[in-house]
Amino acid sequence: MSGYAFYRRAYRAFNDYPSLTKLAVVFTVSGGGLVAFSDSRPFGGAYADAIQANHNKRKVVVLGTGWAGTSFLKNLKDPSYEVQVVSPRNYFAFTPLLPSVTVGTVEARSVVEPVRNIVKKKGLDVKFREAECLKIDAVNKKVYCRSSQDTNLGGEENFTVDYDYLVVAMGARANTFNTPGVVENAHFLKEVEDAQRIRRTVIDCFERANLPTISDEEKKRILHFVVVGGGPTGVEFAAELHDFVTEDLAKLYPSVKDHVKITLLEAADHILNMFDKRITAFAEEKFQRDGIDLKTGSMVVKVTDKEISTKERATGENRSIPYGMVVWSTGIGTRPVVMDFMKQIGQGNRRVLATDEWLRVEGSDSIYALGDCATINQRKVMEDIMAIFSKADKIQSGTLTIADFKDVINDICERYPQVEIYLKKQQLKNFLDLLKNYQGNAQKETIDIELFKAALSEVDSQMKNLPATAQVAAQQGAYLANCFNRMEACEKNPEGPLRFRGSGRHRFRPFRYKHFGQFAPLGGEQTAAQLPGDWVSIGHSTQWLWYSVYASKLVSWRTRVLVISDWGRRFIFGRDSSRI
Amino acid sequence: MSGYAFYRRAYRAFNDYPSLTKLAVVFTVSGGGLVAFSDSRPFGGAYADAIQANHNKRKVVVLGTGWAGTSFLKNLKDPSYEVQVVSPRNYFAFTPLLPSVTVGTVEARSVVEPVRNIVKKKGLDVKFREAECLKIDAVNKKVYCRSSQDTNLGGEENFTVDYDYLVVAMGARANTFNTPGVVENAHFLKEVEDAQRIRRTVIDCFERANLPTISDEEKKRILHFVVVGGGPTGVEFAAELHDFVTEDLAKLYPSVKDHVKITLLEAADHILNMFDKRITAFAEEKFQRDGIDLKTGSMVVKVTDKEISTKERATGENRSIPYGMVVWSTGIGTRPVVMDFMKQIGQGNRRVLATDEWLRVEGSDSIYALGDCATINQRKVMEDIMAIFSKADKIQSGTLTIADFKDVINDICERYPQVEIYLKKQQLKNFLDLLKNYQGNAQKETIDIELFKAALSEVDSQMKNLPATAQVAAQQGAYLANCFNRMEACEKNPEGPLRFRGSGRHRFRPFRYKHFGQFAPLGGEQTAAQLPGDWVSIGHSTQWLWYSVYASKLVSWRTRVLVISDWGRRFIFGRDSSRI
Repeated sequence: MSGYAFYRRAYRAFNDYPSLTKLAVVFTVSGGGLVAFSDSRPFGGAYADAIQANHNKRKVVVLGTGWAGTSFLKNLKDPSYEVQVVSPRNYFAFTPLLPSVTVGTVEARSVVEPVRNIVKKKGLDVKFREAECLKIDAVNKKVYCRSSQDTNLGGEENFTVDYDYLVVAMGARANTFNTPGVVENAHFLKEVEDAQRIRRTVIDCFERANLPTISDEEKKRILHFVVVGGGPTGVEFAAELHDFVTEDLAKLYPSVKDHVKITLLEAADHILNMFDKRITAFAEEKFQRDGIDLKTGSMVVKVTDKEISTKERATGENRSIPYGMVVWSTGIGTRPVVMDFMKQIGQGNRRVLATDEWLRVEGSDSIYALGDCATINQRKVMEDIMAIFSKADKIQSGTLTIADFKDVINDICERYPQVEIYLKKQQLKNFLDLLKNYQGNAQKETIDIELFKAALSEVDSQMKNLPATAQVAAQQGAYLANCFNRMEACEKNPEGPLRFRGSGRHRFRPFRYKHFGQFAPLGGEQTAAQLPGDWVSIGHSTQWLWYSVYASKLVSWRTRVLVISDWGRRFIFGRDSSRI
Repeated sequence: MSGYAFYRRAYRAFNDYPSLTKLAVVFTVSGGGLVAFSDSRPFGGAYADAIQANHNKRKVVVLGTGWAGTSFLKNLKDPSYEVQVVSPRNYFAFTPLLPSVTVGTVEARSVVEPVRNIVKKKGLDVKFREAECLKIDAVNKKVYCRSSQDTNLGGEENFTVDYDYLVVAMGARANTFNTPGVVENAHFLKEVEDAQRIRRTVIDCFERANLPTISDEEKKRILHFVVVGGGPTGVEFAAELHDFVTEDLAKLYPSVKDHVKITLLEAADHILNMFDKRITAFAEEKFQRDGIDLKTGSMVVKVTDKEISTKERATGENRSIPYGMVVWSTGIGTRPVVMDFMKQIGQGNRRVLATDEWLRVEGSDSIYALGDCATINQRKVMEDIMAIFSKADKIQSGTLTIADFKDVINDICERYPQVEIYLKKQQLKNFLDLLKNYQGNAQKETIDIELFKAALSEVDSQMKNLPATAQVAAQQGAYLANCFNRMEACEKNPEGPLRFRGSGRHRFRPFRYKHFGQFAPLGGEQTAAQLPGDWVSIGHSTQWLWYSVYASKLVSWRTRVLVISDWGRRFIFGRDSSRI
């Protein structure tokens, strides 16, 4: 007992005060100095300072505790902010493992970490409010919130929170494309609760098919699992479900196992569109081998309580398929509260909240948006081409020498990331090579605006929106926190590129996404991975790469230990089929 | 990978066919014989036999998968029954750990095991139906059932199940003593779902108290946790909650931690009434030290959504206490379906279903009842005194010699267990000593009916009902399964005591409960234990005894590994406070 207790206390002490080790060193080498320091700040003085500091603190409100919001909180280091976090969930969920949670390969509680645990850092003033954001009032810099606890504690509680800076990281909701019956009858797979519900429903289906009065036809219906959407989530869920059925449930429900069918519906011609063709082909082949019925080119037009209706794109044929459970995973849509905010700030005609390259919401100075609820509206080079040219042409001569140009090359590349991507694609070493290409044989010493335009005319075609992934959201959160950490320093010494349309420089470098690759687990201990540089890796070894990457990316040591022991538990004992 | 896969397969093979090791031995020592055996039963013959056997199989229906039902299923070995299990839960729950589940010391999934896993034995014909029993029809030997899956799979499904033998093990429901508002506003702690709900509500209370608009008074109300009932469950829950608050939540919710209050209400004068006084005193003292407000002699008369009203037994004073969460744990009541069955068989005026000492429902030949839903209606010696005497008096002489008597002594002790308890209490070696006591100095050679009556007149005072514990239910389940296993053998050679009122012998020995002691965990790594022989043990070492006993009693290796790793996880990382 005492051994355990000591370990626990030591662990907690270390966690609560990560600077303990440093402190110990300080004590050892300069105990006297520390005493002198504490002497020099009597209690009254320190207290008054704290109050004073609090008055000057800028209020940051973070909406959401998903990948973007949590990454922001984890990376925020400047103690001069008063941070309030508003989210209906008091935890961060490691969403890439949600498909595993649906069948119990990993337990729900192993993939979540309380936000309060994450922000429990020394010296940061972070308050968490478990509430839903109902409305953003950009004019009065207020957020309207409503409590999200069960209402048996005394009804709804409404309150407002003031901000100086607002970080909108509310994520997205499932997109039903207004297909009738989806909200009422289908399961989504965005939240931990969704995964838990799916797990219970799978067991419900098997238990119901086992009742003595159920006909064979009805058994077939009940045990028909339909997944709509062939993206990574839908594919991984179908694969996990197939593993659960064949590895665990078939043994426990021998009398109905032959009635089980899994169907994956995809409107496009192939599943896993965003991946390399080799991965798509491997996945489609594997699913066929596994007996997962893959129907591509099949659009869902209606879902009732027992049937799902599709229209085949090729033939126009309409079909109705009886089902027991539908999981809907066709992409993301904008939340109503974000939509309402977009109307307020004149973005009402857009599909998703637009920010500039610094993640600042367009048309608003103090509001930032990141993760799935926003998209970066990248500025086109061709829109600014005159401004860029004249900025380089300091003496307004109408032409530029290579020397003139060298001064602004880096700023152009930094401000317009599409330029760099274009250079890479064209296998050009740098910007000058691009210009030289267009000078042709002439080898002029100067460049005029027409030549400049011609050289850059193709560049904007390289612009594309970032994918709505955890990776993007996490990088955006870290980026923004870094900007907040250096807000004052960069105000004095801006480190961003030249403002081509205005004067001076931007405070910060714009956000740049770094793609580290993407996994597509396919079941049966096989995973496909697309790594940077279009490397493709498929098979058992990639599954182990997946295990290691995911284990290392988990948010805390607790979740890491739990997820790894869940994996081990599954290998030894299989997945649990208790309906809880 | 392959190493893991091998281990998993080996483990599963061993689990699926526990006789594998034996089989291997048979192969080694007498491979030839086995081949000869399989030769002698060609496929057609075996198949025909199986069909024939199925027609002759007696149908056993088990209602419930709690301690009694599961213990019955685990111990049933005779393959000549066709067993159907009907229960609204497809798993067995290790209920003594439910208080730990309420705060996440142990996870819900670690204490449950699917019934199908438990009964997945070779050679036994067991079917499980996830359904609720609505009605027992004892006349037509039918049970009416209703599916208990979520109704989105196609409405309710009603069906009947025929039986030859019915085993009623449906447990009990929480007893509210008809106190108004309890069902609507209080939490019970009988099911796994109850524990999960309590866990979410505790977090809800803390999150709500943390909202910016909540007044200090309201914070106090929300963070007032009231436990009604000072039995082992209520006491353990209060202790677990106190540990959760002080060890984990206080650090994460520093701004509200001082408003937390835990109150334990008990109508009697002391908590843990069924335990030794030393344990009660220790528990009461510890709770006082911990700051748990212990109110004894306090009866709850009403619960509204925000207040709980009590009446003090001593003063008659009425009080109203604002609360945030109430957990109600004051004992058990009879389920409506059991009540209805009792009316059918003429037990309508009883409080709980009565069985004889063989667990057979009184007034019914083929229905057995065990666990919390039933009680053994033990036959009084004084009711049968004439029959006992005349049975011993073979020649009907009106008096008995010691020698006459010796023939029936064992049967008396076996048939009427209260006799044995009385002997033990009086520190008498055996029945003859008891008689001799009453002969006094006379030292007569014979005993007449009056002396016999006098000697046994006190014996029935030793009768008491068995407690409604897991231990009793599990022993009853195992006992009944053993009776079923030897049904035919004992039909031919009855092994029970003489039938004093009838002729011949009883088929089986009556059920005897063996008490192995009881634990009362008190929080802070301290547990009290009352062991057989009125041994009492309290403290940290008893907590370790508790850990070992509970770990060893868990139903499967999976749950054992999970619970132990949960305990370890809690020691290192604390309990999780995510609201899922």
